[in-house]
Amino acid sequence: MLRNKNNGELRISNVGEEVTLVGWVSKVRNLGALVFMDLRDRYGITQIYIEPSLFEKVELKSEYCVQVQGKVRERQDKNPNIATGDIEVVASSIKVFSKSMLPPFIVASQTDALEDTRLKTRYLDLRRPCLQENLIKRAQIVASAHRYFDSLGFLEVETPTLIRSTPEGARDYLVPSRIFPGQFYALPQSPQIFKQLLMIGGMDRYYQIARCYRDEDLRADRQPEFTQIDAEMSFIEREDVLNVIEGLLSNIFKDVLNVTLPKFERLSYHDAINIYGSDKPDLRFDLKLVDLTSILSQGSFEAFKNKPIKGLVVPGVGPSTSRKVMDKDNDLAKKFKIHGVSFFKCENGVLTSSLNKFYSEEVLNELKEKTNMKDNDLLIVGADEDNERLCIALGAIRSKYGKELGLTDPNVFKPLFVIDWPLFEKVDDHYESLSNPFTRPRDEDLINLDKDPTKVLSYAYDTVMNGYELSSGSLRIYDSKVQEKVFELLGLSQEDIKERFGFFVDALKYGTPPHGGFAIGLERLTMIICKTDNIKDVVAFPKNLQAYDTMCQAPSYVPSENTDILGLEIKGKEE
Amino acid sequence: MLRNKNNGELRISNVGEEVTLVGWVSKVRNLGALVFMDLRDRYGITQIYIEPSLFEKVELKSEYCVQVQGKVRERQDKNPNIATGDIEVVASSIKVFSKSMLPPFIVASQTDALEDTRLKTRYLDLRRPCLQENLIKRAQIVASAHRYFDSLGFLEVETPTLIRSTPEGARDYLVPSRIFPGQFYALPQSPQIFKQLLMIGGMDRYYQIARCYRDEDLRADRQPEFTQIDAEMSFIEREDVLNVIEGLLSNIFKDVLNVTLPKFERLSYHDAINIYGSDKPDLRFDLKLVDLTSILSQGSFEAFKNKPIKGLVVPGVGPSTSRKVMDKDNDLAKKFKIHGVSFFKCENGVLTSSLNKFYSEEVLNELKEKTNMKDNDLLIVGADEDNERLCIALGAIRSKYGKELGLTDPNVFKPLFVIDWPLFEKVDDHYESLSNPFTRPRDEDLINLDKDPTKVLSYAYDTVMNGYELSSGSLRIYDSKVQEKVFELLGLSQEDIKERFGFFVDALKYGTPPHGGFAIGLERLTMIICKTDNIKDVVAFPKNLQAYDTMCQAPSYVPSENTDILGLEIKGKEE
Repeated sequence: MLRNKNNGELRISNVGEEVTLVGWVSKVRNLGALVFMDLRDRYGITQIYIEPSLFEKVELKSEYCVQVQGKVRERQDKNPNIATGDIEVVASSIKVFSKSMLPPFIVASQTDALEDTRLKTRYLDLRRPCLQENLIKRAQIVASAHRYFDSLGFLEVETPTLIRSTPEGARDYLVPSRIFPGQFYALPQSPQIFKQLLMIGGMDRYYQIARCYRDEDLRADRQPEFTQIDAEMSFIEREDVLNVIEGLLSNIFKDVLNVTLPKFERLSYHDAINIYGSDKPDLRFDLKLVDLTSILSQGSFEAFKNKPIKGLVVPGVGPSTSRKVMDKDNDLAKKFKIHGVSFFKCENGVLTSSLNKFYSEEVLNELKEKTNMKDNDLLIVGADEDNERLCIALGAIRSKYGKELGLTDPNVFKPLFVIDWPLFEKVDDHYESLSNPFTRPRDEDLINLDKDPTKVLSYAYDTVMNGYELSSGSLRIYDSKVQEKVFELLGLSQEDIKERFGFFVDALKYGTPPHGGFAIGLERLTMIICKTDNIKDVVAFPKNLQAYDTMCQAPSYVPSENTDILGLEIKGKEE
Repeated sequence: MLRNKNNGELRISNVGEEVTLVGWVSKVRNLGALVFMDLRDRYGITQIYIEPSLFEKVELKSEYCVQVQGKVRERQDKNPNIATGDIEVVASSIKVFSKSMLPPFIVASQTDALEDTRLKTRYLDLRRPCLQENLIKRAQIVASAHRYFDSLGFLEVETPTLIRSTPEGARDYLVPSRIFPGQFYALPQSPQIFKQLLMIGGMDRYYQIARCYRDEDLRADRQPEFTQIDAEMSFIEREDVLNVIEGLLSNIFKDVLNVTLPKFERLSYHDAINIYGSDKPDLRFDLKLVDLTSILSQGSFEAFKNKPIKGLVVPGVGPSTSRKVMDKDNDLAKKFKIHGVSFFKCENGVLTSSLNKFYSEEVLNELKEKTNMKDNDLLIVGADEDNERLCIALGAIRSKYGKELGLTDPNVFKPLFVIDWPLFEKVDDHYESLSNPFTRPRDEDLINLDKDPTKVLSYAYDTVMNGYELSSGSLRIYDSKVQEKVFELLGLSQEDIKERFGFFVDALKYGTPPHGGFAIGLERLTMIICKTDNIKDVVAFPKNLQAYDTMCQAPSYVPSENTDILGLEIKGKEE
């Protein structure tokens, strides 16, 4: 070892010890008669005191990688902001392992360097303590997951990543085959089919920290490759899987943040939509939607006739809600294709609104009572033929006010399960799966598969935290006839089914156990735990929004013999 | 839970308990008045006793997935071969979760089904207890590695798998880019560069269970995708890394096999070659090579003039070594391009050989003394201008006899480190890296980089066990000038270096710490622990020798719109 202590561990109790430290020169303060250097490694920062006579003999610049030998002593002016702030090390010798060119930005948590600059020299960016902290937390999350799954008898099994392309949903990344020119593997969007095959194969309990791929246009929360904490269990019921998810996440939050998560709440999909206007409601704040259909359909306001009417009370913001704010809320609502929203304020005990003229005093009193409005409260009301669309529009406004009112404390974590999802949604004139086509319909709803598929609820469940979807999962279909029926309802012809999922439907016919599982988005979980909205902050070597690696310069052109051998020609390429 | 016990846990102490078991019907023995069923899950097999009246009501065939309720009782005829052999469960009710079609082969460890048949329905193959046992061991190996690395402060960091293609060594799998048509990512052959960048980035200690890819022609011990236990450390010396490897493997063997590995031996590359004729010697048996140059060059045998001469004594096989056996040994030696081998036997205290006529009695006595031969021993002698080639040829013969003499007990494990590898080997008129181009030359040999590169030894180390390479690794170059020098010696032009490794050479210039690491082939390790020579036995969903997945049928053709969007045309494809 080239050190015997790290830069995060020396305390007042170490005073007098001879130590050898290593790390990077973070800062040099040359005060003439005194020289101080901050030495940085993954574990922290230690102040080094250097005699001018020693300082003369050694070149020390930012990001030089060095070894320092010396004695620990108590600091005169202690620094309570760092763990080693009580001490400093008086250097007796300093060795430079390797020099550094001038870095393109200062290596510190606070930076105003452009993201592109930082990505180009990501290895320097990674020295910033905040990024190190994020990657350490990510590793701690995974380590906690390993321990948890191991304790429950789950086996980590690796599933293949050169698989068959089964076009559905997002676009596959393709990998050309050399042995079968003109044919392609796909990189997996998830290990879904393979984990189900493992259950059919009797592996009983599986998990994997699984790399997944989607060739989609990127956003701040997406990368072309990402990771799922992926698990599947046999011979279980929904409760058993939910217990595993709750246990897993509770362990992770305890291990990584020392936070005890509250008992996970539960909402049916129907209630999540109707109460919070979202299938991933943020439970850190209340602001529930109120059904006002029976009350507000009583007046003469045409736009409120014969449709569901929902309201949202935001306490205390009445006075600050100008016409301009209302317009913005209205615009937000319209993005969800509802007609718009109207407003009631409560002033001196009475409701005021441009809609007042359509309603009797009695109805307005009824409204005030139902919504429990106090002076200064604001009521936002919408109506639409489509109840779900209406709720979601109001849910978006709810989120906006939650944030604006400071109700979204990132240090508060409110987990819940959203259960009883519809199996299908009707899009135009066809059905689509709300989760995936392997999701098992509830036993009591099987009868509706033929009669009214939109009525069929499923054993799907999402884990939601603070407005984000953390995991999705379901019990799976284990009857090949039900599976084929679902494929049919999704509009797949017998030929499609055979071509895309033939081997899987066959597999279901060999004694498939009841099974189910879940997948947690590791980046999303890490983002919540690290309190960042940028996925690049939790990925060691991320790509930019063009899925381009600016450090390694990938993708790139390759020699034509490498594509020739794959039987491929690049269109429009001059030879 | 659909069970309260598994099929591996019931013992005599459970007699009288009501239990619910689940699993697959492994065997039904209908003796008319008595019906027995073997119920199988991942945990074992339990015998179920079924009253004929119950058996009449339920259809039970091979591989049906069922739930059994009943009471545990002591068996009349105990079965000592299974853990639950003392008891049976008297079924009170049986529920069939799902039926099975007739499987294409019997699900049992012993099978004569063709591999291709088994791969086509791998999900059934995976139900065979021997394969389950292998995948469980593989998972235990990885779980043990997680615990070990975690205990030492290593962080599991995921490195990207859509990377820049840097053609060298094996062929890359390519991934076409949609956003940059005509350009490609590559799938990594190893995380080598990224783990070194993590060290430059100050992550200090990294590990990863890393998926790697090579588009090579396959053999029984290769798959297109495979896994490395990959690690890297900063601020360390060679001893520190070797300690981590030894600790890791010792923990794994203890955790998975309850085997205490002996202290790892050490051999320089030079000694491994000269003593055992291999860079991965099998130390389970002795059979060392003896240098006979000084003795056997004394005679008049022309073929032994002016070249190294090496001998191998195989005890006790003299009488059974016929002319035919000698011819085979000679053929084996010639495969390594040496001239062939000669033989001496020891009979009645004297050496006999067709070469006797070339040597005086004195020399023959000297030979007998040097080789310490006893009656019935066989001495195999070779000579060649190239000492290494000579040793390796004799090493192959050594391996052959080791196996034939039953000296390769698969339950004995003899680990060693092979160290001090040459940095380069000269192939024709150019130099190639013996490990990888990032391997650090030994400090004392740096001077020879200019003078005689073949003389330069490195800080590379392999872990070898029972004749297999388990891991390879090295300290890495952390001086960009040395790195450029090595690239030059490997024949890379400045342009090549810039094109392929430019960003990496740049990275080295920003204060790179001394660092090093290793990678263990997970499949090879699992194969040794599971005592199999077929890599497919330790991979959940392997591909065949054409890199084809016969179950999923991958690779496959994809719709032309999917290749159009990538800017690719399939050669010779009719539209």
